[in-house]
Amino acid sequence: MAIIAVGSLALDSINTAKGARKRILGGSLTHFANAASFLSKPLLVGVVGNDLGNDNWEFIKSKAGSTEGIVHLDEEKCFFWEGVYSDDYEKLETVRTELNAFAKFNPVVPDSYKKETFILFLANIDPVIQEKVLAQSRGSMLRILDTMNFWIKNSRENLDRALDEVDGILINEEEAFLLTCEKNIVKAAEKMFRPSFKIVIIKKGSGGSMIFGPDFIITLPAFPLHEITDPTGAGDCFAGAFMSYLDHNRIRDYKREVIKNAAVYATVVASFSVEDFGVEGLRKITARDINNRCREFRKMAAFK
Amino acid sequence: MAIIAVGSLALDSINTAKGARKRILGGSLTHFANAASFLSKPLLVGVVGNDLGNDNWEFIKSKAGSTEGIVHLDEEKCFFWEGVYSDDYEKLETVRTELNAFAKFNPVVPDSYKKETFILFLANIDPVIQEKVLAQSRGSMLRILDTMNFWIKNSRENLDRALDEVDGILINEEEAFLLTCEKNIVKAAEKMFRPSFKIVIIKKGSGGSMIFGPDFIITLPAFPLHEITDPTGAGDCFAGAFMSYLDHNRIRDYKREVIKNAAVYATVVASFSVEDFGVEGLRKITARDINNRCREFRKMAAFK
Repeated sequence: MAIIAVGSLALDSINTAKGARKRILGGSLTHFANAASFLSKPLLVGVVGNDLGNDNWEFIKSKAGSTEGIVHLDEEKCFFWEGVYSDDYEKLETVRTELNAFAKFNPVVPDSYKKETFILFLANIDPVIQEKVLAQSRGSMLRILDTMNFWIKNSRENLDRALDEVDGILINEEEAFLLTCEKNIVKAAEKMFRPSFKIVIIKKGSGGSMIFGPDFIITLPAFPLHEITDPTGAGDCFAGAFMSYLDHNRIRDYKREVIKNAAVYATVVASFSVEDFGVEGLRKITARDINNRCREFRKMAAFK
Repeated sequence: MAIIAVGSLALDSINTAKGARKRILGGSLTHFANAASFLSKPLLVGVVGNDLGNDNWEFIKSKAGSTEGIVHLDEEKCFFWEGVYSDDYEKLETVRTELNAFAKFNPVVPDSYKKETFILFLANIDPVIQEKVLAQSRGSMLRILDTMNFWIKNSRENLDRALDEVDGILINEEEAFLLTCEKNIVKAAEKMFRPSFKIVIIKKGSGGSMIFGPDFIITLPAFPLHEITDPTGAGDCFAGAFMSYLDHNRIRDYKREVIKNAAVYATVVASFSVEDFGVEGLRKITARDINNRCREFRKMAAFK
């Protein structure tokens, strides 16, 4: 089995209470692959510009099963995003977004990616691009889409068309409220859950996560952290770890207990990612660290 | 074993997105006893005025092991509180507070309450009253204090003195931040955790709860609800159910797994309380309903 994933490969400038970083490696696809790579190296579809830097490219390659689907646009710069978090990390202000290479991106899913059974992750990205990838990925076992406020507000029709083609959505709590005009999370999930869906995953930041299946609800707390440094990409890391768990364990039947275990694993992996800037939180750990923290999380949150 | 509890018996006027109620039975002690009563009827210390009404008094008596410690001030009215919740229940505006009988309350803990081993709960109330009850309750096995913004801001010295005399605190997340000037929940808990403490319980509303012991952290999600009607008293209900679990099971050693089970039980009991106004959410259920929802919660949140 394999994971095919499309999303952004970006340079980010980030300000938090813990400090600032300029033009560090980021993007939804980068964080997804970084978190997935402990169990399964995804096959990537994306675009980079001329200013990514060799170290960043080597890093992305090391986390990928293949980068054949990544286009290099030598005339363009990388997608760039600048954001500032409030001191309590509850608010995020986007200072600047430059689409750059992203604006000219026409995704192509290489045939080599589709040789074995695959699951498909459409990371947070223009729904038009998500649709194009969906059109080239018939026969995928599970198709999950992430999105954000910007596309919900400005690209609703395209987003709705993309949603018609997937098996589930992964979304932040506030975005779920925005998408459904609901204020209750259970009602929002019900409204999002289309008849064709297998799963709805709602990320609640420090409030943990909730997952809705056709016949179950799962609710899990976040892993309690003493220090948060940079929450950027935590949701993408959750997604990457979650999908890698399904892929690694060759899950074909998305039942409550399996999904719960995948979510516990994803909760723990995502917790490392916010402990340092950009990809650094996960760069410095091993599978052993993840297992140890899973054990710790079990002590804190598991009950009979 | 027994529970002695002091707090307010009040009349509340409440406005929420689901409707409004005028002068219904409320108060921290009422909600505490209401939630505790499924496992253990607490011995109450409090004050009521001349406008409580016979039905409300009968209700309170039915939830209490004894009301000998409740003073009736016939010249005064009951403590009165009026509040309005925002549509998403995230904000609460206090419209009016009238201390009434409460202003003249001099608590007396009857000797009859202290015949057997007891645990003591100081519900949200003036810390001066909490101190007076503490002074009359030497030898209690476990003393837990609840408090709120108002006392943290306006009665800090008295509150600190009361905190010197207890084994633990039960507090809302925002109040924990206010008390400690921290913005991270783990750091706030560490700062609150005095050397003499056995436990710190932090209620996070729809974000669940966290409990800190000398050598453990517990984190649990809230029970996911389709409808919320009135969150008033949910924290007191959590406290009442939590303490009743410890009392009912004769817990003397506050270890991780026992505390976790008490918190799971309290999470479920508190979830019923917010489904209707005032005491009604718990009035209409039985122990069987609680057990069924505990089973449901286990399916949603328990993992191995």
